[in-house]
Amino acid sequence: MAAHPPLSSFASSIPPFHVMELLARAHALQSAGRDIIHMEVGEPDFPTPSPVLTSAERFLARGEVRYTQATGLPELRAAISRFYETRMKASVSPERIIITAGASAALMLAIATLTDPGDEWLLTDPGYPCNRQFVRAFNGIPCPITVSADTNYQPEEGQIRQSWSDRSKGLLVASPANPTGTLIGEGELDMMSRLMSQLGGTLIVDEIYQGLIYDADASSVLARHNDVFVVNSFSKYFGMTGWRLGWLVVPEGYERHVEKVAQHLYIAASTPAQHAAIAAFSPECLEILETRRNTFAHRRDLLLRELPGLGFQPQGRPAGAFYIYADVSGLTDSSHELAIRLLEKGFVASTPGADFGNWKSAQHLRLAYTTDERRLTEALERIRTCL
Amino acid sequence: MAAHPPLSSFASSIPPFHVMELLARAHALQSAGRDIIHMEVGEPDFPTPSPVLTSAERFLARGEVRYTQATGLPELRAAISRFYETRMKASVSPERIIITAGASAALMLAIATLTDPGDEWLLTDPGYPCNRQFVRAFNGIPCPITVSADTNYQPEEGQIRQSWSDRSKGLLVASPANPTGTLIGEGELDMMSRLMSQLGGTLIVDEIYQGLIYDADASSVLARHNDVFVVNSFSKYFGMTGWRLGWLVVPEGYERHVEKVAQHLYIAASTPAQHAAIAAFSPECLEILETRRNTFAHRRDLLLRELPGLGFQPQGRPAGAFYIYADVSGLTDSSHELAIRLLEKGFVASTPGADFGNWKSAQHLRLAYTTDERRLTEALERIRTCL
Repeated sequence: MAAHPPLSSFASSIPPFHVMELLARAHALQSAGRDIIHMEVGEPDFPTPSPVLTSAERFLARGEVRYTQATGLPELRAAISRFYETRMKASVSPERIIITAGASAALMLAIATLTDPGDEWLLTDPGYPCNRQFVRAFNGIPCPITVSADTNYQPEEGQIRQSWSDRSKGLLVASPANPTGTLIGEGELDMMSRLMSQLGGTLIVDEIYQGLIYDADASSVLARHNDVFVVNSFSKYFGMTGWRLGWLVVPEGYERHVEKVAQHLYIAASTPAQHAAIAAFSPECLEILETRRNTFAHRRDLLLRELPGLGFQPQGRPAGAFYIYADVSGLTDSSHELAIRLLEKGFVASTPGADFGNWKSAQHLRLAYTTDERRLTEALERIRTCL
Repeated sequence: MAAHPPLSSFASSIPPFHVMELLARAHALQSAGRDIIHMEVGEPDFPTPSPVLTSAERFLARGEVRYTQATGLPELRAAISRFYETRMKASVSPERIIITAGASAALMLAIATLTDPGDEWLLTDPGYPCNRQFVRAFNGIPCPITVSADTNYQPEEGQIRQSWSDRSKGLLVASPANPTGTLIGEGELDMMSRLMSQLGGTLIVDEIYQGLIYDADASSVLARHNDVFVVNSFSKYFGMTGWRLGWLVVPEGYERHVEKVAQHLYIAASTPAQHAAIAAFSPECLEILETRRNTFAHRRDLLLRELPGLGFQPQGRPAGAFYIYADVSGLTDSSHELAIRLLEKGFVASTPGADFGNWKSAQHLRLAYTTDERRLTEALERIRTCL
């Protein structure tokens, strides 16, 4: 049995993350005393903001860590609703906001609520690798739309229409996107919303990097459209990765259905994390987060300035998140091999394009600027030396 | 659209929990100043044990709340492995233990890893209501085996054989069970393991109430069998409900597959909860938990002594968990109506049998002894008065 476990077709065909293999090697080198610069991880280097920690500590001092409602703490849902109003000029009632165990659970909740076996979801290639697996887990079919620098790594109307079939359920996009950091413009969001409404499909927008954009203010599709599922997270802008907390916004009419699914599949999200997160919206915390955003902007600008000289061509307009997706075809035929070389010779860890899809993935590499400018400068120097 | 959302067949056909409706009414009565005795909730009334809280506070003081490995903190997996060894005489390597966001995520992980559309899972009726929905979420088919006091609310060999078809994937049982608190004997576990091996099926044992048994020491199927998936939780015995932490034990050969599914579907469980839980196995904490177990035993004995005189006949041998499933057919034709009467007239909340299945559910009611003896005595008095 150990050799041939009776796995589901979903489980038996999940590809491994290439970055995990590199990460294991990076940890081995680290254990052997090497100083590794981590540019592979999608996790900011900042600690949990102190007001969030203080809020958690205050809650824990009471010792009563009970289940919350399946939809989350009312105070937290109200705080998110107010944040949409004040920061994004979006009117989102607390009833439409469901607190989840990270954006992972929010995505799973949306897909589980909407997908029957054989339903197709349109996704971008390159894109966040887990999206395909959420769709597959519930026996849907991920249909990749290849996107490139020509369309700023976002799908165009013609592509969506061309990929649409009578089994299509909807379109899942991200703004800012991973691995490219590109945004979807207002006109394109309007197009996607209009198109889904025409075609009878559902639009899901992943806004987990919301707040981490550097040439404009944060925005949400919810300021313009309400017939949309929106996935968000406390991990990135709010610096709360390990807490595993996120949320899902659902269109009116879905609240009760999604609540029932959440009750059965999750019971509720972590209570200490929920109490901690209430403080994430305090003026004191938002000031810390805006300072961090400024720091990320400087890091991005440093990489955008220096990478081309090394033969790494940043793709699209990386306006947000903390990633640069670089074309490295001038340096190698295999970004995976290049990633290994950078790690083994330069002790710089990165993520090969293959983790984000199949389209020209061998000629792209993702670099995360989740480490400070001094280390980034050192990384650039090491890359220069080992090329 | 709001009127006819395009839901998955799974989401559109989830029944609501009847207890939620009662709970909403209980909260309304409470807001109106009524003193409600809660015997409906599956949540112990004890706070998080102080060593667990201290461990969390110490971890948070460092401020670095990062993602852990998808399988969980190595120290925590090692602590669970040692606990199996010392407490349950079961040899379970840490590699087979995957930390999850509560038993909910452990169950989902097991079902997602094993189930293709149309696969059948044998479950008990009555049983934990979410189990059916986990199976349905991944497009499997829950096949209820009706169990009664005759078999101590656990399935017999003949029933399993009779329910087995060529689409059957496996058998999901619980010991102690919910809503009855009954155990599966060693001989029956051997039978189930042997039968699954003969039939080519998989056995999943839910041990989330492990530790909460009152006439014997805690035990695990893993002391006798390794070809089994085991679901466990820090919520019940360890008193950590709101933290949302549990684990899944997988048979040898499945470790890598389940890890890949966990990476994609969850990233990881909550980091503060994981650090907190390491202290759950300290001698100091186990002493607190054993005192609580003793308290639960006294509460159970009180109810077993007093309920029959009120016309509530405890079913099976409720050896564990914190529930008594009572036959109330001498009092009513509808346990749901009785639950409403007890709430409206006696201000005692309970859970009608309909939440646990269809088999004679209208003649059963579940009472949880998750409140102290003084309150339980008061509840019994109120029930007496309003009958």
